[in-house]
Amino acid sequence: MREGIVELDQPLRLMSGEILDKPRISWRLLGDPHLPVVLVGGGISAGKQAWTDVCESAKGWWQAQIGPGQAVDTNCFRVLAFDYLGGNGETTGPTGWNGENGNDPALFPAIDTADQADLAACLLNALGIDRLASFIGASYGGMVAQQFAARHPQRLNKALVICAGHEATPLATGWRHVQRQVLGLGLDCGEVARAVSIARSLAMCTYRSDREFSKRFATGVNPASSATAYLDHCGAHFARRFNIYAYLCLSQSIDDHHVQPQEISVPVDLAGFNSDQIVPVRQLIALRQLLGSKCSLTLSDSIYGHDAFLKEENAVSGVIREHLESLQ
Amino acid sequence: MREGIVELDQPLRLMSGEILDKPRISWRLLGDPHLPVVLVGGGISAGKQAWTDVCESAKGWWQAQIGPGQAVDTNCFRVLAFDYLGGNGETTGPTGWNGENGNDPALFPAIDTADQADLAACLLNALGIDRLASFIGASYGGMVAQQFAARHPQRLNKALVICAGHEATPLATGWRHVQRQVLGLGLDCGEVARAVSIARSLAMCTYRSDREFSKRFATGVNPASSATAYLDHCGAHFARRFNIYAYLCLSQSIDDHHVQPQEISVPVDLAGFNSDQIVPVRQLIALRQLLGSKCSLTLSDSIYGHDAFLKEENAVSGVIREHLESLQ
Repeated sequence: MREGIVELDQPLRLMSGEILDKPRISWRLLGDPHLPVVLVGGGISAGKQAWTDVCESAKGWWQAQIGPGQAVDTNCFRVLAFDYLGGNGETTGPTGWNGENGNDPALFPAIDTADQADLAACLLNALGIDRLASFIGASYGGMVAQQFAARHPQRLNKALVICAGHEATPLATGWRHVQRQVLGLGLDCGEVARAVSIARSLAMCTYRSDREFSKRFATGVNPASSATAYLDHCGAHFARRFNIYAYLCLSQSIDDHHVQPQEISVPVDLAGFNSDQIVPVRQLIALRQLLGSKCSLTLSDSIYGHDAFLKEENAVSGVIREHLESLQ
Repeated sequence: MREGIVELDQPLRLMSGEILDKPRISWRLLGDPHLPVVLVGGGISAGKQAWTDVCESAKGWWQAQIGPGQAVDTNCFRVLAFDYLGGNGETTGPTGWNGENGNDPALFPAIDTADQADLAACLLNALGIDRLASFIGASYGGMVAQQFAARHPQRLNKALVICAGHEATPLATGWRHVQRQVLGLGLDCGEVARAVSIARSLAMCTYRSDREFSKRFATGVNPASSATAYLDHCGAHFARRFNIYAYLCLSQSIDDHHVQPQEISVPVDLAGFNSDQIVPVRQLIALRQLLGSKCSLTLSDSIYGHDAFLKEENAVSGVIREHLESLQ
């Protein structure tokens, strides 16, 4: 495995108009240099650690999918991952993203999913990779994959988009808006960790499903207590590792996401799960119709809601294998 | 119409063990004294203003259902409503409920839905009403109606429970837990109105549905902006009229709610809506089975989620009429 931080020798123009001078991109690459490259991207809290080495303490966010003989088979493909612009990793953020201009939300810069796609294209240049066999993106990564397909079609054979739509749904935007309001309250009151924890607890409620919570916590007379303890635990854990500005920035980026499906000429495979509250099945069906005949859609049953892209390892593995086999 | 505040001449023992000395209950009663009485109860933000007089500026929360010729036909029934214990109205709260002992959540008193039912029974005593023809409760009121049926069966012919289960689901508890965490942050930071507004915005996301938000806000390229403006508006409006302690108290009361359906001997009619995120259809089907042959269940299609008990006036009217006709 190779990893590093490249400093681009060219400026990057963001959709907001800001020009980032020599942005830095943190990346990780696995596999034989002669093999075709697959780029993987996950949720807003995921980065280049899609897989980890045995010497690393934590598992990668898609550890189960990547490696020799796995769905993203490193005997057949090289795998590339990077930290998002304005995210929690070591990649650059735009001016003001980390609060240096103050905490007024009006001062926070916008990062478009198109910016992430352009950053990925710059990263390919820097690494000397001409073309991707596939961009496999889930959640936020699936939005970026759509943008990459729309903006850089000559650098991509096909994309796989899991649990992501062409725009945010109004209710999911509502959930995220509330999270950002909580984060803003925390910043104004000097209660950052507490606010990040609360916002993450809310996010967890939207990432899972009624069925999963009921199955998991309805064991006693009062199932309430363990659901609340679980949410508090998830929130506190996240608050220890995740930057509040990255949370604000990428949360807003999801809500600003908009791709014109008609502008995507590269074939796209779509996959989703019936209990996803963030990307409902009806949206994936609509997106498939808008993408036309070059698109396939695989819907699977799951109790895990949006998090099925992490939790339903077998279903996701099947979708990835079928997608990558179709490339050959 | 008559209304008033009764001060009980007897103490009321709460499930927490606290004894309320001479609690005050704020109530409202409509119709001919010779007619049988129907008690109506709504959500945690609803109180005795189920209907209003023409001279009052605001409409009642169930204005469409109550009156001459309406579903709760005041030519056939008297209608009674009251403000909840520990709620936003003029009824008493338990010791410490309004923060007089401090804002540590551990110091906030618990109010059981059984306490609300016992309070209702005390109110009947005070008003000289021996027996209810029906207790028609929706949302929190539906939980109280179940408790009344379980604890005071000799005072009730039948109950109608709309959008309420025998216990909170773990996911709905999660949503409310996050709301209470936000309220706690607001209390600690002296940002009460802002916290109530954020918590209410979250509540609105859980009261409606993906389908309704998508239909309503997906008119432009960026449907996000209007959903967020709507939530901010709902939150700010609520923050101007609703007490943060009442919010905390009754939100917790929902999560503590637990009725043993097997202990209900009075016939119960149930009604619900397929898009309700708070009281999912699967729970109503399970409750119906637990209640046995003395129970009916009416499920209706709606895009309005939990708020269908307010928004689906025709469907709710039909359910109420059928219920009240079965009494005669």
